[in-house]
Amino acid sequence: MNFSSKILEEAVYALSTLPGVGKKSALRLALHLVQDNTHKSTKIAKALARLENDICKCKICCNLSDYEVCEICLAPHRMKQVLCIVESARDVMAIEDTNQFSGKYHVLGGVISPLEGIGPSDISIDLLIKRIQDENILEVIMAISPTIEGETTIYYISKLLTDYNVKVSIIARGVAFGGDLEYADELTLGRSITSRVPYNVQS
Amino acid sequence: MNFSSKILEEAVYALSTLPGVGKKSALRLALHLVQDNTHKSTKIAKALARLENDICKCKICCNLSDYEVCEICLAPHRMKQVLCIVESARDVMAIEDTNQFSGKYHVLGGVISPLEGIGPSDISIDLLIKRIQDENILEVIMAISPTIEGETTIYYISKLLTDYNVKVSIIARGVAFGGDLEYADELTLGRSITSRVPYNVQS
Repeated sequence: MNFSSKILEEAVYALSTLPGVGKKSALRLALHLVQDNTHKSTKIAKALARLENDICKCKICCNLSDYEVCEICLAPHRMKQVLCIVESARDVMAIEDTNQFSGKYHVLGGVISPLEGIGPSDISIDLLIKRIQDENILEVIMAISPTIEGETTIYYISKLLTDYNVKVSIIARGVAFGGDLEYADELTLGRSITSRVPYNVQS
Repeated sequence: MNFSSKILEEAVYALSTLPGVGKKSALRLALHLVQDNTHKSTKIAKALARLENDICKCKICCNLSDYEVCEICLAPHRMKQVLCIVESARDVMAIEDTNQFSGKYHVLGGVISPLEGIGPSDISIDLLIKRIQDENILEVIMAISPTIEGETTIYYISKLLTDYNVKVSIIARGVAFGGDLEYADELTLGRSITSRVPYNVQS
């Protein structure tokens, strides 16, 4: 591409480092911003600068937070003794959106993946064990994606937790609501049969 | 969406104002930037801030430029007396990428569109006429998209140019290279027949 402006070229290059944004999309975005009269470019620039400088991890649960301790950890009405273990801050948001959980979270910041060189010490497992010792946790819910790495992580953590008097559960796996049985993969469908649950007819 | 961080929420909102970026994509981008260790966020922020503050329009041709006069207008080896009229800076880049034009440009900054309230005085036609008077232009090539608005603009400018001793041409329209005749629209195919050109067999 022949750029008439070095500044434009640099903006296009910077935007094209975003995931899923190619050179042509980046050029489209940059030209949109140049032509915009509402200071959109400056607004985005400010927001992104704060993203790097001002956001931090909650020192209790490792969730993304604006302060040392996140809002969920500070919330007085949430159950303190039930801990939901998730891979990332994105997963906390997904679970919060369901309005079905009112305990606290622990964000691992990844899953154990020997292929990518991520071991148990690279994710916040030590902190989790410390919390279980200190915070009188009664139940731990594993809400980790059912991938090979996820299952490995669940197994590793459960193994560690046998030393403590804590109930361990994992979120239900099975066919998705609204999903068609014929399109469910064999493993999911097979497991949903072996893990069938009693059906209660409400009287 | 339940955000645990106001800063994250603001970044997601700012990114979602970009064209073609929805809330979920914006969240994906923002979380990618939070987790990135290479200061990508700050780099993009700096590039976007410069985009708004430091980029300007060339005072001769209205192309985007880092300086008062753009590189193309300053280039000594380019033909001074052939002017290619385009709608936007993006079109200059597209034509430059072909390596088929070595004259100068004039960027209109839009096309005449009564429906959107864009009249002849809203685009840089006055400046174009001034250039034709001052710069001893011999030929004007209209490289404007063949839309209704584009055709109107071409007609309007050509009409103005009849007062000056300048040759006016438009870029060839017809079926695209590699395109299938059966998929070409009727108007394009029809015009490509009426505007057929002699075929020269090279001996």
